[in-house]
Amino acid sequence: MGDEVEKFTVVSLTDGSLSTTEELVAIEAPITIIFNNQELATLLCSPSELDYLAIGFLYSERLIERKDQIKKLLVDEKRGTVRIETVEDIEPAREIMFKRLITSGCGGGTSLYRAADAAVDRVKSKVVISADEILSISGKFQRHSEIYLKTHGVHSAALYDGNKILVFCEDVGRHNAIDKIIGRCLWEGIPTRDRIIITSGRVSSEILYKIAKAGIPVIISISSPTNMGVKIAAEMGITLVGSARGKRFTVYANPERVKTG
Amino acid sequence: MGDEVEKFTVVSLTDGSLSTTEELVAIEAPITIIFNNQELATLLCSPSELDYLAIGFLYSERLIERKDQIKKLLVDEKRGTVRIETVEDIEPAREIMFKRLITSGCGGGTSLYRAADAAVDRVKSKVVISADEILSISGKFQRHSEIYLKTHGVHSAALYDGNKILVFCEDVGRHNAIDKIIGRCLWEGIPTRDRIIITSGRVSSEILYKIAKAGIPVIISISSPTNMGVKIAAEMGITLVGSARGKRFTVYANPERVKTG
Repeated sequence: MGDEVEKFTVVSLTDGSLSTTEELVAIEAPITIIFNNQELATLLCSPSELDYLAIGFLYSERLIERKDQIKKLLVDEKRGTVRIETVEDIEPAREIMFKRLITSGCGGGTSLYRAADAAVDRVKSKVVISADEILSISGKFQRHSEIYLKTHGVHSAALYDGNKILVFCEDVGRHNAIDKIIGRCLWEGIPTRDRIIITSGRVSSEILYKIAKAGIPVIISISSPTNMGVKIAAEMGITLVGSARGKRFTVYANPERVKTG
Repeated sequence: MGDEVEKFTVVSLTDGSLSTTEELVAIEAPITIIFNNQELATLLCSPSELDYLAIGFLYSERLIERKDQIKKLLVDEKRGTVRIETVEDIEPAREIMFKRLITSGCGGGTSLYRAADAAVDRVKSKVVISADEILSISGKFQRHSEIYLKTHGVHSAALYDGNKILVFCEDVGRHNAIDKIIGRCLWEGIPTRDRIIITSGRVSSEILYKIAKAGIPVIISISSPTNMGVKIAAEMGITLVGSARGKRFTVYANPERVKTG
Protein backbone atom coordinates (compact mmCIF):
# COMPACT_ATOMS: atom_id res chain seq x y z
CA MET A 1 0.00 0.00 0.00
CA GLY A 2 1.29 3.50 0.70
CA ASP A 3 0.55 5.65 -2.29
CA GLU A 4 -2.57 3.67 -3.05
CA VAL A 5 -4.50 5.26 -0.16
CA GLU A 6 -5.77 8.79 0.38
CA LYS A 7 -6.48 10.43 3.73
CA PHE A 8 -9.95 11.90 4.34
CA THR A 9 -11.48 13.77 7.26
CA VAL A 10 -14.47 11.70 8.33
CA VAL A 11 -17.07 11.56 11.11
CA SER A 12 -16.98 8.28 13.00
CA LEU A 13 -19.34 6.73 15.50
CA THR A 14 -17.35 5.03 18.24
CA ASP A 15 -18.68 4.18 21.71
CA GLY A 16 -21.96 5.85 20.91
CA SER A 17 -20.64 9.30 20.04
CA LEU A 18 -19.78 10.99 16.76
CA SER A 19 -16.35 12.50 16.36
CA THR A 20 -14.24 13.94 13.57
CA THR A 21 -11.18 11.91 12.69
CA GLU A 22 -9.01 10.94 9.73
CA GLU A 23 -9.18 7.77 7.71
CA LEU A 24 -7.27 6.17 4.86
CA VAL A 25 -9.34 5.16 1.86
CA ALA A 26 -8.24 3.04 -1.12
CA ILE A 27 -7.51 5.01 -4.28
CA GLU A 28 -9.47 4.02 -7.39
CA ALA A 29 -7.84 5.37 -10.54
CA PRO A 30 -8.77 5.10 -14.23
CA ILE A 31 -5.86 3.66 -16.19
CA THR A 32 -6.05 3.53 -19.97
CA ILE A 33 -4.09 0.84 -21.76
CA ILE A 34 -2.82 2.05 -25.12
CA PHE A 35 -1.80 -0.94 -27.22
CA ASN A 36 0.15 -0.18 -30.39
CA ASN A 37 -1.15 3.41 -30.34
CA GLN A 38 -4.76 2.30 -29.96
CA GLU A 39 -6.79 2.94 -26.80
CA LEU A 40 -7.77 -0.57 -25.78
CA ALA A 41 -9.39 -0.37 -22.35
CA THR A 42 -9.72 1.81 -19.28
CA LEU A 43 -9.48 -0.07 -16.01
CA LEU A 44 -10.56 1.24 -12.63
CA CYS A 45 -7.74 0.05 -10.41
CA SER A 46 -5.35 0.70 -7.56
CA PRO A 47 -2.53 2.75 -9.11
CA SER A 48 0.34 0.37 -8.31
CA GLU A 49 2.22 -2.15 -10.46
CA LEU A 50 0.53 -0.71 -13.52
CA ASP A 51 3.08 -2.37 -15.80
CA TYR A 52 2.13 -5.80 -14.44
CA LEU A 53 -1.56 -4.93 -14.61
CA ALA A 54 -1.32 -3.97 -18.30
CA ILE A 55 0.78 -7.01 -19.22
CA GLY A 56 -1.52 -9.37 -17.33
CA PHE A 57 -4.58 -7.78 -18.94
CA LEU A 58 -3.11 -8.11 -22.45
CA TYR A 59 -2.16 -11.72 -21.72
CA SER A 60 -5.65 -12.53 -20.43
CA GLU A 61 -7.09 -10.83 -23.54
CA ARG A 62 -4.78 -12.98 -25.70
CA LEU A 63 -3.02 -10.03 -27.29
CA ILE A 64 0.42 -11.03 -26.03
CA GLU A 65 1.83 -14.44 -25.17
CA ARG A 66 5.49 -13.80 -24.32
CA LYS A 67 7.64 -11.03 -22.84
CA ASP A 68 9.86 -10.83 -25.95
CA GLN A 69 6.88 -9.64 -27.99
CA ILE A 70 6.94 -6.36 -26.05
CA LYS A 71 9.15 -3.67 -27.62
CA LYS A 72 8.20 -0.74 -25.40
CA LEU A 73 6.36 -0.32 -22.12
CA LEU A 74 5.74 3.16 -20.77
CA VAL A 75 3.78 3.89 -17.59
CA ASP A 76 2.61 7.49 -17.18
CA GLU A 77 1.00 7.65 -13.75
CA LYS A 78 0.12 11.32 -14.08
CA ARG A 79 -1.83 10.86 -17.29
CA GLY A 80 -3.14 7.49 -16.16
CA THR A 81 -1.86 5.59 -19.17
CA VAL A 82 0.20 2.50 -19.89
CA ARG A 83 1.55 2.41 -23.45
CA ILE A 84 2.64 -0.94 -24.82
CA GLU A 85 4.10 -1.49 -28.25
CA THR A 86 4.90 -4.87 -29.70
CA VAL A 87 7.80 -5.89 -31.95
CA GLU A 88 5.47 -7.14 -34.65
CA ASP A 89 2.24 -5.30 -35.23
CA ILE A 90 -0.60 -6.99 -33.39
CA GLU A 91 -4.05 -5.59 -34.11
CA PRO A 92 -6.81 -6.38 -31.62
CA ALA A 93 -9.39 -8.35 -33.59
CA ARG A 94 -12.39 -6.25 -34.53
CA GLU A 95 -14.33 -9.01 -32.88
CA ILE A 96 -12.62 -8.45 -29.54
CA MET A 97 -13.30 -4.73 -29.74
CA PHE A 98 -16.92 -5.38 -30.56
CA LYS A 99 -17.24 -7.87 -27.76
CA ARG A 100 -16.04 -5.29 -25.31
CA LEU A 101 -18.59 -2.94 -26.76
CA ILE A 102 -21.49 -5.01 -25.55
CA THR A 103 -20.09 -5.41 -22.09
CA SER A 104 -20.65 -3.66 -18.81
CA GLY A 105 -21.37 -4.16 -15.15
CA CYS A 106 -19.08 -5.57 -12.56
CA GLY A 107 -16.55 -7.69 -14.35
CA GLY A 108 -17.80 -7.25 -17.89
CA GLY A 109 -19.02 -10.04 -20.06
CA THR A 110 -16.25 -10.19 -22.62
CA SER A 111 -14.72 -13.36 -21.24
CA LEU A 112 -17.96 -15.18 -21.61
CA TYR A 113 -17.79 -15.08 -25.32
CA ARG A 114 -14.52 -16.85 -25.16
CA ALA A 115 -16.14 -19.95 -23.68
CA ALA A 116 -16.84 -21.39 -27.10
CA ASP A 117 -13.68 -20.24 -28.84
CA ALA A 118 -11.50 -20.52 -25.74
CA ALA A 119 -9.01 -22.87 -27.39
CA VAL A 120 -7.26 -23.04 -24.03
CA ASP A 121 -6.02 -26.54 -23.23
CA ARG A 122 -7.38 -28.33 -20.20
CA VAL A 123 -4.90 -27.68 -17.38
CA LYS A 124 -2.78 -30.77 -16.70
CA SER A 125 -0.76 -30.92 -13.51
CA LYS A 126 0.26 -33.55 -10.97
CA VAL A 127 0.30 -30.97 -8.17
CA VAL A 128 -1.38 -32.12 -4.98
CA ILE A 129 -2.14 -30.08 -1.87
CA SER A 130 -3.09 -31.42 1.55
CA ALA A 131 -6.09 -30.22 3.54
CA ASP A 132 -3.72 -28.96 6.26
CA GLU A 133 -1.74 -26.96 3.75
CA ILE A 134 -4.92 -25.37 2.38
CA LEU A 135 -5.95 -24.38 5.91
CA SER A 136 -2.56 -22.99 6.80
CA ILE A 137 -1.86 -21.02 3.63
CA SER A 138 -5.42 -19.70 3.27
CA GLY A 139 -5.48 -18.77 6.97
CA LYS A 140 -2.31 -16.73 6.60
CA PHE A 141 -3.55 -15.13 3.41
CA GLN A 142 -7.01 -14.48 4.80
CA ARG A 143 -5.81 -12.73 7.95
CA HIS A 144 -3.74 -10.43 5.82
CA SER A 145 -6.27 -9.80 3.09
CA GLU A 146 -9.34 -9.39 5.30
CA ILE A 147 -7.69 -6.54 7.17
CA TYR A 148 -7.04 -4.83 3.88
CA LEU A 149 -10.53 -5.51 2.59
CA LYS A 150 -12.16 -4.07 5.69
CA THR A 151 -9.90 -1.11 6.30
CA HIS A 152 -8.71 -0.20 2.86
CA GLY A 153 -11.19 -1.93 0.61
CA VAL A 154 -8.75 -3.78 -1.60
CA HIS A 155 -8.62 -7.35 -2.85
CA SER A 156 -5.51 -9.49 -2.70
CA ALA A 157 -4.13 -12.35 -4.77
CA ALA A 158 -1.03 -14.48 -4.31
CA LEU A 159 0.94 -17.12 -6.19
CA TYR A 160 2.03 -20.00 -3.94
CA ASP A 161 4.53 -22.72 -4.86
CA GLY A 162 3.77 -25.21 -2.07
CA ASN A 163 6.43 -23.69 0.16
CA LYS A 164 6.02 -19.97 0.07
CA ILE A 165 4.16 -17.01 -1.44
CA LEU A 166 6.10 -16.02 -4.57
CA VAL A 167 4.04 -13.02 -5.64
CA PHE A 168 1.47 -10.96 -3.72
CA CYS A 169 -0.68 -8.23 -5.34
CA GLU A 170 -3.49 -5.96 -4.24
CA ASP A 171 -6.11 -3.98 -6.13
CA VAL A 172 -9.55 -2.46 -5.64
CA GLY A 173 -10.70 -4.86 -8.38
CA ARG A 174 -10.48 -8.60 -7.84
CA HIS A 175 -9.84 -9.15 -11.58
CA ASN A 176 -7.00 -6.64 -11.55
CA ALA A 177 -5.27 -8.32 -8.59
CA ILE A 178 -5.18 -11.55 -10.63
CA ASP A 179 -3.97 -9.73 -13.77
CA LYS A 180 -1.15 -8.15 -11.74
CA ILE A 181 -0.01 -11.60 -10.55
CA ILE A 182 -0.06 -13.03 -14.07
CA GLY A 183 1.57 -9.93 -15.57
CA ARG A 184 4.42 -9.99 -13.08
CA CYS A 185 4.98 -13.71 -13.67
CA LEU A 186 5.17 -13.15 -17.43
CA TRP A 187 7.52 -10.16 -17.06
CA GLU A 188 9.86 -11.79 -14.55
CA GLY A 189 9.77 -15.30 -16.02
CA ILE A 190 8.10 -16.84 -12.94
CA PRO A 191 6.39 -20.07 -14.04
CA THR A 192 2.69 -20.33 -13.20
CA ARG A 193 2.23 -23.97 -14.20
CA ASP A 194 2.00 -26.43 -11.28
CA ARG A 195 1.42 -23.53 -8.90
CA ILE A 196 -1.48 -22.35 -6.78
CA ILE A 197 -3.25 -19.01 -6.86
CA ILE A 198 -5.02 -17.63 -3.78
CA THR A 199 -7.61 -14.85 -3.96
CA SER A 200 -9.76 -12.87 -1.57
CA GLY A 201 -12.41 -12.34 -4.22
CA ARG A 202 -15.37 -14.32 -5.41
CA VAL A 203 -14.56 -16.78 -8.19
CA SER A 204 -16.65 -15.99 -11.25
CA SER A 205 -16.31 -17.07 -14.89
CA GLU A 206 -13.83 -14.36 -15.79
CA ILE A 207 -11.44 -15.22 -12.98
CA LEU A 208 -11.46 -18.83 -14.17
CA TYR A 209 -10.67 -17.86 -17.77
CA LYS A 210 -7.65 -15.91 -16.58
CA ILE A 211 -6.42 -18.81 -14.44
CA ALA A 212 -6.98 -21.33 -17.25
CA LYS A 213 -5.08 -19.14 -19.72
CA ALA A 214 -2.11 -19.04 -17.33
CA GLY A 215 -2.30 -22.83 -16.88
CA ILE A 216 -2.67 -22.61 -13.09
CA PRO A 217 -4.06 -25.95 -11.77
CA VAL A 218 -5.39 -24.88 -8.35
CA ILE A 219 -7.28 -21.79 -7.15
CA ILE A 220 -8.11 -21.18 -3.49
CA SER A 221 -10.58 -18.43 -2.57
CA ILE A 222 -11.69 -17.23 0.83
CA SER A 223 -15.00 -16.31 -0.83
CA SER A 224 -17.58 -18.41 -2.64
CA PRO A 225 -17.72 -19.15 -6.38
CA THR A 226 -20.52 -18.66 -8.89
CA ASN A 227 -22.04 -21.62 -10.76
CA MET A 228 -20.16 -20.64 -13.92
CA GLY A 229 -16.93 -20.47 -11.95
CA VAL A 230 -17.53 -24.06 -10.80
CA LYS A 231 -18.49 -25.29 -14.28
CA ILE A 232 -15.51 -23.73 -16.04
CA ALA A 233 -13.13 -25.04 -13.36
CA ALA A 234 -14.57 -28.55 -13.79
CA GLU A 235 -14.30 -28.31 -17.59
CA MET A 236 -10.78 -26.85 -17.65
CA GLY A 237 -9.31 -29.33 -15.15
CA ILE A 238 -8.77 -26.70 -12.45
CA THR A 239 -9.16 -27.56 -8.78
CA LEU A 240 -11.42 -24.92 -7.26
CA VAL A 241 -11.30 -24.52 -3.49
CA GLY A 242 -13.66 -21.93 -2.06
CA SER A 243 -15.00 -20.60 1.24
CA ALA A 244 -11.60 -21.29 2.85
CA ARG A 245 -12.25 -19.73 6.24
CA GLY A 246 -11.14 -20.86 9.70
CA LYS A 247 -11.03 -24.67 9.79
CA ARG A 248 -13.22 -25.22 6.76
CA PHE A 249 -13.08 -25.17 3.01
CA THR A 250 -15.07 -26.60 0.12
CA VAL A 251 -13.67 -28.16 -3.05
CA TYR A 252 -16.08 -27.30 -5.87
CA ALA A 253 -14.25 -28.94 -8.78
CA ASN A 254 -11.53 -31.51 -9.45
CA PRO A 255 -11.01 -32.60 -5.82
CA GLU A 256 -8.46 -35.29 -6.82
CA ARG A 257 -5.63 -32.84 -6.16
CA VAL A 258 -6.68 -32.38 -2.52
CA LYS A 259 -5.40 -35.00 -0.05
CA THR A 260 -6.49 -35.54 3.56
CA GLY A 261 -4.03 -34.55 6.29
CA MET B 1 -33.25 -16.57 -4.18
CA GLY B 2 -34.60 -19.93 -5.26
CA ASP B 3 -34.01 -20.24 -8.95
CA GLU B 4 -30.88 -18.14 -8.68
CA VAL B 5 -28.88 -20.96 -7.10
CA GLU B 6 -27.62 -24.26 -8.52
CA LYS B 7 -26.81 -27.40 -6.52
CA PHE B 8 -23.35 -28.93 -6.88
CA THR B 9 -21.75 -32.03 -5.40
CA VAL B 10 -18.69 -30.80 -3.51
CA VAL B 11 -16.03 -32.11 -1.16
CA SER B 12 -16.01 -30.28 2.16
CA LEU B 13 -13.56 -30.24 5.02
CA THR B 14 -15.44 -30.23 8.31
CA ASP B 15 -14.01 -31.30 11.68
CA GLY B 16 -10.75 -32.28 10.01
CA SER B 17 -12.15 -34.78 7.52
CA LEU B 18 -13.13 -34.53 3.88
CA SER B 19 -16.60 -35.65 2.86
CA THR B 20 -18.80 -35.44 -0.19
CA THR B 21 -21.87 -33.28 0.21
CA GLU B 22 -24.11 -30.92 -1.74
CA GLU B 23 -23.98 -27.16 -1.82
CA LEU B 24 -25.97 -24.33 -3.37
CA VAL B 25 -23.98 -21.89 -5.49
CA ALA B 26 -25.15 -18.54 -6.90
CA ILE B 27 -25.99 -18.58 -10.58
CA GLU B 28 -24.12 -16.10 -12.79
CA ALA B 29 -25.84 -15.62 -16.14
CA PRO B 30 -25.00 -13.45 -19.15
CA ILE B 31 -27.96 -11.22 -20.00
CA THR B 32 -27.89 -9.15 -23.15
CA ILE B 33 -29.89 -5.94 -23.20
CA ILE B 34 -31.28 -5.24 -26.68
CA PHE B 35 -32.33 -1.60 -26.88
CA ASN B 36 -34.39 -0.62 -29.92
CA ASN B 37 -33.11 -3.68 -31.78
CA GLN B 38 -29.49 -2.91 -30.99
CA GLU B 39 -27.34 -5.07 -28.67
CA LEU B 40 -26.32 -2.60 -26.02
CA ALA B 41 -24.59 -4.53 -23.24
CA THR B 42 -24.18 -7.98 -21.78
CA LEU B 43 -24.31 -8.09 -18.00
CA LEU B 44 -23.14 -10.97 -15.83
CA CYS B 45 -25.88 -11.15 -13.25
CA SER B 46 -28.20 -13.20 -11.08
CA PRO B 47 -31.09 -14.18 -13.37
CA SER B 48 -33.90 -12.60 -11.37
CA GLU B 49 -35.83 -9.35 -11.82
CA LEU B 50 -34.25 -8.96 -15.24
CA ASP B 51 -36.84 -6.39 -16.24
CA TYR B 52 -35.84 -4.16 -13.33
CA LEU B 53 -32.17 -4.77 -14.04
CA ALA B 54 -32.53 -3.68 -17.66
CA ILE B 55 -34.63 -0.62 -16.81
CA GLY B 56 -32.25 0.44 -14.05
CA PHE B 57 -29.26 -0.06 -16.33
CA LEU B 58 -30.83 2.03 -19.11
CA TYR B 59 -31.74 4.73 -16.60
CA SER B 60 -28.20 4.79 -15.18
CA GLU B 61 -26.88 4.99 -18.75
CA ARG B 62 -29.24 7.92 -19.40
CA LEU B 63 -31.06 6.20 -22.23
CA ILE B 64 -34.45 6.35 -20.55
CA GLU B 65 -35.82 8.78 -17.99
CA ARG B 66 -39.45 7.75 -17.50
CA LYS B 67 -41.56 4.61 -17.62
CA ASP B 68 -43.87 6.04 -20.29
CA GLN B 69 -40.97 6.12 -22.76
CA ILE B 70 -41.00 2.31 -22.79
CA LYS B 71 -43.26 0.80 -25.47
CA LYS B 72 -42.26 -2.85 -25.13
CA LEU B 73 -40.33 -4.88 -22.60
CA LEU B 74 -39.68 -8.54 -23.29
CA VAL B 75 -37.64 -10.81 -21.00
CA ASP B 76 -36.47 -14.08 -22.58
CA GLU B 77 -34.75 -15.97 -19.78
CA LYS B 78 -33.91 -18.94 -22.00
CA ARG B 79 -32.07 -16.85 -24.56
CA GLY B 80 -30.69 -14.55 -21.89
CA THR B 81 -32.06 -11.37 -23.41
CA VAL B 82 -34.13 -8.40 -22.37
CA ARG B 83 -35.59 -6.47 -25.31
CA ILE B 84 -36.69 -2.92 -24.69
CA GLU B 85 -38.28 -0.67 -27.29
CA THR B 86 -39.09 2.97 -26.74
CA VAL B 87 -42.06 4.98 -28.03
CA GLU B 88 -39.80 7.46 -29.76
CA ASP B 89 -36.60 6.23 -31.32
CA ILE B 90 -33.69 6.76 -28.95
CA GLU B 91 -30.29 5.97 -30.40
CA PRO B 92 -27.43 5.39 -27.96
CA ALA B 93 -24.91 8.15 -28.68
CA ARG B 94 -21.95 6.90 -30.68
CA GLU B 95 -19.94 8.48 -27.93
CA ILE B 96 -21.52 6.23 -25.29
CA MET B 97 -20.84 3.18 -27.43
CA PHE B 98 -17.26 4.24 -27.90
CA LYS B 99 -16.83 4.93 -24.21
CA ARG B 100 -17.91 1.44 -23.43
CA LEU B 101 -15.42 0.22 -25.97
CA ILE B 102 -12.48 1.40 -23.92
CA THR B 103 -13.80 -0.10 -20.74
CA SER B 104 -13.20 -3.30 -18.90
CA GLY B 105 -12.29 -4.79 -15.55
CA CYS B 106 -14.44 -4.99 -12.49
CA GLY B 107 -16.98 -2.26 -12.85
CA GLY B 108 -15.93 -0.79 -16.14
CA GLY B 109 -14.74 2.74 -16.58
CA THR B 110 -17.63 4.18 -18.57
CA SER B 111 -19.08 6.11 -15.67
CA LEU B 112 -15.83 7.89 -15.14
CA TYR B 113 -16.12 9.74 -18.37
CA ARG B 114 -19.41 11.07 -17.27
CA ALA B 115 -17.78 13.00 -14.45
CA ALA B 116 -17.17 15.99 -16.66
CA ASP B 117 -20.39 15.84 -18.64
CA ALA B 118 -22.46 14.45 -15.79
CA ALA B 119 -25.02 17.26 -15.89
CA VAL B 120 -26.63 15.67 -12.86
CA ASP B 121 -27.81 18.19 -10.30
CA ARG B 122 -26.36 18.16 -6.84
CA VAL B 123 -28.74 16.13 -4.68
CA LYS B 124 -30.80 18.37 -2.42
CA SER B 125 -32.73 16.82 0.44
CA LYS B 126 -33.63 17.72 4.01
CA VAL B 127 -33.61 14.08 5.05
CA VAL B 128 -31.82 13.41 8.33
CA ILE B 129 -30.99 10.07 9.90
CA SER B 130 -29.92 9.42 13.47
CA ALA B 131 -26.87 7.41 14.47
CA ASP B 132 -29.13 4.88 16.20
CA GLU B 133 -31.22 4.46 13.08
CA ILE B 134 -28.10 3.85 10.97
CA LEU B 135 -26.96 1.18 13.44
CA SER B 136 -30.34 -0.50 13.60
CA ILE B 137 -31.15 -0.55 9.89
CA SER B 138 -27.63 -1.45 8.77
CA GLY B 139 -27.44 -4.16 11.43
CA LYS B 140 -30.65 -5.74 10.17
CA PHE B 141 -29.54 -5.42 6.58
CA GLN B 142 -26.03 -6.69 7.31
CA ARG B 143 -27.15 -9.83 9.14
CA HIS B 144 -29.32 -10.73 6.19
CA SER B 145 -26.88 -9.81 3.45
CA GLU B 146 -23.73 -11.27 5.02
CA ILE B 147 -25.33 -14.70 5.20
CA TYR B 148 -26.11 -14.46 1.51
CA LEU B 149 -22.66 -13.17 0.66
CA LYS B 150 -20.94 -16.00 2.50
CA THR B 151 -23.20 -18.86 1.55
CA HIS B 152 -24.52 -17.85 -1.82
CA GLY B 153 -22.08 -15.18 -2.91
CA VAL B 154 -24.58 -12.47 -3.77
CA HIS B 155 -24.72 -8.77 -2.97
CA SER B 156 -27.82 -7.05 -1.65
CA ALA B 157 -29.23 -3.55 -1.87
CA ALA B 158 -32.29 -1.99 -0.28
CA LEU B 159 -34.31 1.21 -0.44
CA TYR B 160 -35.29 2.50 3.01
CA ASP B 161 -37.79 5.27 3.74
CA GLY B 162 -36.92 5.93 7.39
CA ASN B 163 -39.54 3.46 8.57
CA LYS B 164 -39.16 0.33 6.53
CA ILE B 165 -37.37 -1.38 3.67
CA LEU B 166 -39.41 -0.63 0.54
CA VAL B 167 -37.41 -2.60 -2.01
CA PHE B 168 -34.80 -5.33 -1.52
CA CYS B 169 -32.73 -6.80 -4.38
CA GLU B 170 -29.90 -9.29 -4.72
CA ASP B 171 -27.36 -9.95 -7.44
CA VAL B 172 -23.91 -11.48 -7.91
CA GLY B 173 -22.81 -8.00 -9.04
CA ARG B 174 -23.01 -5.08 -6.64
CA HIS B 175 -23.75 -2.68 -9.52
CA ASN B 176 -26.61 -4.85 -10.70
CA ALA B 177 -28.22 -4.98 -7.26
CA ILE B 178 -28.35 -1.16 -7.31
CA ASP B 179 -29.69 -1.09 -10.89
CA LYS B 180 -32.45 -3.53 -9.90
CA ILE B 181 -33.53 -1.23 -7.06
CA ILE B 182 -33.58 1.83 -9.32
CA GLY B 183 -35.28 -0.03 -12.16
CA ARG B 184 -38.03 -1.33 -9.92
CA CYS B 185 -38.60 2.15 -8.47
CA LEU B 186 -38.91 3.62 -11.98
CA TRP B 187 -41.27 0.86 -13.12
CA GLU B 188 -43.52 0.91 -10.06
CA GLY B 189 -43.45 4.66 -9.50
CA ILE B 190 -41.69 4.41 -6.13
CA PRO B 191 -39.98 7.76 -5.43
CA THR B 192 -36.25 7.58 -4.68
CA ARG B 193 -35.79 11.22 -3.67
CA ASP B 194 -35.45 11.79 0.10
CA ARG B 195 -34.81 8.09 0.60
CA ILE B 196 -31.86 6.01 1.70
CA ILE B 197 -30.12 3.22 -0.16
CA ILE B 198 -28.27 0.46 1.69
CA THR B 199 -25.71 -1.79 0.02
CA SER B 200 -23.49 -4.72 0.96
CA GLY B 201 -20.93 -3.77 -1.67
CA ARG B 202 -18.00 -1.42 -1.75
CA VAL B 203 -18.88 2.11 -2.83
CA SER B 204 -16.88 3.06 -5.91
CA SER B 205 -17.33 5.87 -8.44
CA GLU B 206 -19.86 4.00 -10.54
CA ILE B 207 -22.15 3.25 -7.61
CA LEU B 208 -22.16 6.97 -6.74
CA TYR B 209 -23.06 8.01 -10.30
CA LYS B 210 -26.06 5.67 -10.22
CA ILE B 211 -27.19 7.03 -6.83
CA ALA B 212 -26.71 10.65 -7.94
CA LYS B 213 -28.68 10.04 -11.12
CA ALA B 214 -31.59 8.68 -9.05
CA GLY B 215 -31.36 11.69 -6.69
CA ILE B 216 -30.88 9.54 -3.58
CA PRO B 217 -29.41 11.70 -0.77
CA VAL B 218 -27.98 9.01 1.55
CA ILE B 219 -26.09 5.78 0.91
CA ILE B 220 -25.14 3.36 3.69
CA SER B 221 -22.67 0.56 2.98
CA ILE B 222 -21.45 -2.22 5.21
CA SER B 223 -18.21 -2.12 3.20
CA SER B 224 -15.65 0.64 2.66
CA PRO B 225 -15.65 3.23 -0.15
CA THR B 226 -12.92 4.15 -2.61
CA ASN B 227 -11.44 7.66 -2.73
CA MET B 228 -13.40 8.45 -5.89
CA GLY B 229 -16.59 7.26 -4.19
CA VAL B 230 -15.92 9.72 -1.36
CA LYS B 231 -15.07 12.58 -3.72
CA ILE B 232 -18.12 12.15 -5.93
CA ALA B 233 -20.39 11.85 -2.89
CA ALA B 234 -18.95 15.09 -1.48
CA GLU B 235 -19.35 16.85 -4.83
CA MET B 236 -22.86 15.60 -5.53
CA GLY B 237 -24.23 16.39 -2.06
CA ILE B 238 -24.72 12.74 -1.12
CA THR B 239 -24.20 11.57 2.47
CA LEU B 240 -21.92 8.56 2.30
CA VAL B 241 -21.93 6.25 5.33
CA GLY B 242 -19.53 3.31 5.12
CA SER B 243 -18.11 0.47 7.21
CA ALA B 244 -21.44 0.18 9.04
CA ARG B 245 -20.70 -2.91 11.11
CA GLY B 246 -21.69 -3.73 14.68
CA LYS B 247 -21.77 -0.55 16.76
CA ARG B 248 -19.67 1.53 14.36
CA PHE B 249 -19.92 3.45 11.14
CA THR B 250 -18.02 6.19 9.36
CA VAL B 251 -19.51 9.15 7.50
CA TYR B 252 -17.20 9.92 4.58
CA ALA B 253 -19.10 12.80 3.01
CA ASN B 254 -21.83 15.32 3.87
CA PRO B 255 -22.21 14.35 7.55
CA GLU B 256 -24.76 17.13 8.18
CA ARG B 257 -27.61 14.68 7.55
CA VAL B 258 -26.46 12.39 10.40
CA LYS B 259 -27.64 13.34 13.90
CA THR B 260 -26.42 11.92 17.23
CA GLY B 261 -28.78 9.63 19.14
